[in-house]
Amino acid sequence: MNRKELIAQIQAKKTFLCVGLDTDFIKLPYHLQKQPDAVFEFNKAIIDATLNHCVSYKINTAFYESMGLKGWEAMERTLDYIPKSHFTIADAKRGDIGNTSSHYAKTFFEIFPFDAITVAPYMGEDSIRPFLEYENKWTIVLGLTSNKGASDFQRLSIGNSQERLYTQVIDTVSAWGTPDNLMFVVGATQARDLRSIRDIIPDNFLLVPGIGTQGGCLEEVCKYGANEDGGILVNVSRAILYAKSDENFKAAAAEVATKYSNEMASFFKEEMA
Amino acid sequence: MNRKELIAQIQAKKTFLCVGLDTDFIKLPYHLQKQPDAVFEFNKAIIDATLNHCVSYKINTAFYESMGLKGWEAMERTLDYIPKSHFTIADAKRGDIGNTSSHYAKTFFEIFPFDAITVAPYMGEDSIRPFLEYENKWTIVLGLTSNKGASDFQRLSIGNSQERLYTQVIDTVSAWGTPDNLMFVVGATQARDLRSIRDIIPDNFLLVPGIGTQGGCLEEVCKYGANEDGGILVNVSRAILYAKSDENFKAAAAEVATKYSNEMASFFKEEMA
Repeated sequence: MNRKELIAQIQAKKTFLCVGLDTDFIKLPYHLQKQPDAVFEFNKAIIDATLNHCVSYKINTAFYESMGLKGWEAMERTLDYIPKSHFTIADAKRGDIGNTSSHYAKTFFEIFPFDAITVAPYMGEDSIRPFLEYENKWTIVLGLTSNKGASDFQRLSIGNSQERLYTQVIDTVSAWGTPDNLMFVVGATQARDLRSIRDIIPDNFLLVPGIGTQGGCLEEVCKYGANEDGGILVNVSRAILYAKSDENFKAAAAEVATKYSNEMASFFKEEMA
Repeated sequence: MNRKELIAQIQAKKTFLCVGLDTDFIKLPYHLQKQPDAVFEFNKAIIDATLNHCVSYKINTAFYESMGLKGWEAMERTLDYIPKSHFTIADAKRGDIGNTSSHYAKTFFEIFPFDAITVAPYMGEDSIRPFLEYENKWTIVLGLTSNKGASDFQRLSIGNSQERLYTQVIDTVSAWGTPDNLMFVVGATQARDLRSIRDIIPDNFLLVPGIGTQGGCLEEVCKYGANEDGGILVNVSRAILYAKSDENFKAAAAEVATKYSNEMASFFKEEMA
């Protein structure tokens, strides 16, 4: 999916919502756990329930890898089930020397035809280039993440300047791609930093995790992160997936997704009218 | 495999050699490509050929993932074929928020029972902790990598000090584990930096890629990287795997592995006698 199509989806639906399919077998409703392809059946129900309230689905590969071969099959079936109207993200956080990153790019752009993959920046330009070479595919580089450990290295001061590692990463990496193929992960728990990040990259999309269970504030994220195009994808995983743990999980997921989406729609009304 | 056992293997064989199974289908000898499980058959031959000349095998997960489900099957069979006497590394460079990293740890320590996994440090402590919680398993954190892009961020100066990002990463992360469960990746192409890294972490094992095709100097790596226990695992991938691309690939791989191993043995004679 290209930038124009993504923006059109966001504007038409008036939502930035991305539903994170961090599907954990042991958290599935008990009646589903007994089914042979429980993870896919759960994802299918969640997708059906949330489809009209979101523009994107993010599959967290760790949850599928930890199930072995069966997990990769469930991921394949899930990706195949997501309608082409929705932007698909492999949240895989890969990154290696160029020769190896090419294989990861092939995995998540060809073998599993996602629109986008998340990538770690530590190994520098040649670890990211192979992903950027694909047309109409997106590379989403970690900038400032939503976890506690983000402070360990991402916030270190660089040289004698006011610059932090994460601002340096965003600034440097943004020159390797364009707003048409490059996004950044910026955690919602750091919403006050979104404003300064927007000064560095006014046009790139931001993938924002940390809303919901992790406690980020949606209003702040919209206020400081969104731009004229929309410019953000706000991910919610656990708060939607596990809204209820019984037979009513599907209706509960729809309800939570609707709630988030309505909040976002009201932002469109106020700020982007 | 625990530290004592790893050291005993190194001392008995007088080698630090780790053979990197970065097995790329399109580089396999033509006669093998026609076999139904070509990648495993190739790996099996390479393992048979190099077994007596190395102490470790490193499986680069990207090369297997890019083959889809068949690749994961080949990885599983390969790991199963490696004798228990050899230290096994999943070169997966994973890392995510704690909740997600737990799933990666499960994948590479339980589903696929490797001894060790490589992990990226950008997301900080909670992204690394879940790996360290496994007994007799090893976490190998990226310090200074062997690729050109290592200069983009890893060598940035931190604050007003002489400290670089990679020395800060090594220093900080080393306190989260012990030399019994924590190693660092330090590229051989940066052998002159090994000495200063040894000042920070005299006891941790270093996994050293970059020898062979990438041009690192083995003599310098042994001189500056090794310690009394051995203390290094020197990875060679392409120079061994693709020493010859015809029916004689197995003998050629054995020859190259022997050459590296003999060089290492002479270091044992001179420096560690």
